[in-house]
Amino acid sequence: MAELRREPVTRMWVVVTTDHPKGPSDYLPFKPPYRPQEPEGPCPFCPGNEGMTPREIFSLKGEKEGWSVRVIPNKFPFFHIEGDFDRRPEGMYDVMEAIGAHEIVVENPAHQTTLATMEPKQIKKILLAYKERLIDLERDRRFRQFLIMKNYPGIFNRHPHSHILAMPVVPKRIDEEIWGASDYFQRKERCIFCDIIKEEISMKKRVILETVHFLIFSPFASRYPFETWIIPKVHASDFHHIGEEEMEDLSVGIQSLFHSFETLLSDPPYSLTFHTSPIQDRLHRLHYHWHIETRLRIGLREGFEWGTGFFVNPTPPEEAAHYLRGVG
Amino acid sequence: MAELRREPVTRMWVVVTTDHPKGPSDYLPFKPPYRPQEPEGPCPFCPGNEGMTPREIFSLKGEKEGWSVRVIPNKFPFFHIEGDFDRRPEGMYDVMEAIGAHEIVVENPAHQTTLATMEPKQIKKILLAYKERLIDLERDRRFRQFLIMKNYPGIFNRHPHSHILAMPVVPKRIDEEIWGASDYFQRKERCIFCDIIKEEISMKKRVILETVHFLIFSPFASRYPFETWIIPKVHASDFHHIGEEEMEDLSVGIQSLFHSFETLLSDPPYSLTFHTSPIQDRLHRLHYHWHIETRLRIGLREGFEWGTGFFVNPTPPEEAAHYLRGVG
Repeated sequence: MAELRREPVTRMWVVVTTDHPKGPSDYLPFKPPYRPQEPEGPCPFCPGNEGMTPREIFSLKGEKEGWSVRVIPNKFPFFHIEGDFDRRPEGMYDVMEAIGAHEIVVENPAHQTTLATMEPKQIKKILLAYKERLIDLERDRRFRQFLIMKNYPGIFNRHPHSHILAMPVVPKRIDEEIWGASDYFQRKERCIFCDIIKEEISMKKRVILETVHFLIFSPFASRYPFETWIIPKVHASDFHHIGEEEMEDLSVGIQSLFHSFETLLSDPPYSLTFHTSPIQDRLHRLHYHWHIETRLRIGLREGFEWGTGFFVNPTPPEEAAHYLRGVG
Repeated sequence: MAELRREPVTRMWVVVTTDHPKGPSDYLPFKPPYRPQEPEGPCPFCPGNEGMTPREIFSLKGEKEGWSVRVIPNKFPFFHIEGDFDRRPEGMYDVMEAIGAHEIVVENPAHQTTLATMEPKQIKKILLAYKERLIDLERDRRFRQFLIMKNYPGIFNRHPHSHILAMPVVPKRIDEEIWGASDYFQRKERCIFCDIIKEEISMKKRVILETVHFLIFSPFASRYPFETWIIPKVHASDFHHIGEEEMEDLSVGIQSLFHSFETLLSDPPYSLTFHTSPIQDRLHRLHYHWHIETRLRIGLREGFEWGTGFFVNPTPPEEAAHYLRGVG
C-alpha cells in the first residue's frame, strides 16, 4: 500500500510507500551510479596548481599558509558574464543570451575530503565564501536569482567543490515555491515554511536534528529516499544575510548530517542546493524562507520522475528520519 | 556562449550551448550509467513462464501460437486498485490513499528485442494494447490521468516492457503543459502544439522525420541532448482515440527514430512518456495535444537539474535533428 502525500508549498503529489518501506539496507550493498574516472594529470583545484585555473575571485587564508577556500570563475560556465541579453523572438519562440555568473568554490585544499569528514570550522569557511560572493554579485542588477549547488562526487573533478550561479531568470522549482508561499501568505498572513517548522518540531517524527538556529528534517512529501531539508528556525528569506553565529551553528549541522549519510548509506552520491529568495524583488522577503535541500542519488526511478514530474518514494520520511537520528 | 531558450508551453527557460555544441561523438565511447544485473532465474515475462506473473488482463495473439503482446498487473504497483481515497489532513498536510492502476505491457515474446530492432507491425500491436487498456480504464471514474511510460533498459527486468498507469491526480509536468496550453488558447484561440507543428515544419531545421500523420522533431528548448517529440500533425487530445492508420504510421516512425538512436549513440538508455489529456475533464480537448516525449539518459548533469528545475543542454536541437536525420 502507498499514500499520496501533497507537498505543501508546490502542491505536488508524491507517492510514498507506507508498508514494506525500504530502509538503508535495501539500498546496500550500494551500487554506485556510473562515476567518471578522475581525469589524468594534476588536479587544477589542488594547492600549487592555481595557475591552471582562471584568476581567483575570492579566497580565505589557510591557518598556516596558502588558502583554505578559493573561488574562481568556472572555465566551462553555463552563463557568461559579458554582453547584453539581446531578448528576441525566433519564429514563435523566445530566446536571449545566457548572461550570468558561474563560479566554482574550491572547498578545501585537500583533494580527498568530504562534508562528512571536514571539520565544522572548514564548512563555516565555505559558507562564508558563499555569503561574500553573493553580497558582491547582488550589486549586478542583471541577476534575479542565486543558486548554490554541490554534486558529490564532482562530475569532472573529485576535489571537493561547489557551484555558485547568478542567473537572469528564476528557475522553475524556486518559482513554484515562490508561487505557493505567496499564495499561502495571502490566505494566512504567515510564512508557510515557518508553519512547517512549527509543525515538524511539534510532531517530532520527521526531525533528524535540531540545533540552536536550524531544523534538519525529512519533509512530509519527500520526493526521494532520505531527502533532507535544513532550514533556519527564525524567518529569513536570503541566505546571504546569515550571521556569524548562525553560520557556525549551520556548519555543525551540515557536518553531522553528512556524517550520518556516510555512516548509514556507505558514502552515497548526493546533490545539495540552497534555495534562497530571488534578488531585486523585495516582495518575497515576507513569504519566502531560504533553506537547503539535499538528495541522495540512490534508487533507480529516474525515467518515471523525468517523464511525468511525478515522484515515487519507497522510503517514508518518518523512517528516514528515524534511521538518520539513530546514527547522529 | 550559450542561449536561454524558453519552452513555449510551460515557459521554462533552458540553457542551450550554441558554440562548441556536443555531437554524438562527445557522448561516445558511451559510458553506460549503472545498469542493474539481470535477476537470476527464469524471466517472468518470457513465454512459458506466464504462471509467474499475476493473471493476464489483456493479450494479443501471436502469429503462429501463444501471445504477441501481454498486459498484466504490476506485482509491485505504485498505485493500488482497491479501496477508497480516504482524503484526510495530517497536521497541516494533505494525504490520501494512492488509488490507481499500474499495469505492465510485455511488448514482445522475445527477451532480447528493442524498439530499434522490432518490426513496425509488432510496435503497432503494442500501441493497440495501450489503446485498448486505456479505453477500458477510462470507465473507472476515479482516474484523472493516464501515463504510458517506458524505461530502456528495464530497471528490474530487461525483457522489453512498458508501464501503463491510471492516476487519481494529474502529474506536475502534464499539469504545467495544460496550464500553458490553456492560457495560450485563451489568448489566441489556437492550440499551441498545433502552432509549434506549423512552425517546425516551415522552419525545417529541427525536423527529424515527417510521416503522413506524425511529426518527429527536436523541440526548440530541448532540456536534454537528443530530446525528441513525436506528435500527431492533426489536432488530437487523447492518445487512445488514435485510428488504425495512424497507429500503423506511428509504429514506423517509432521504429525509425529508435533505430537512429541506436545507430548514432550505440544503444543508449532512454525514457519515453506519452503525454495525453487528463480524462473526465473534457475542457482540455480543444487546447491539449497528445504527444510522446523521449529522453536519452546520457550526459551527467542530474544534480543541477534536480536541485533547480533548471536545464542545461550542451547539444542544440538543430544539431541533434541534423544528426538524427542523417542516419534515418
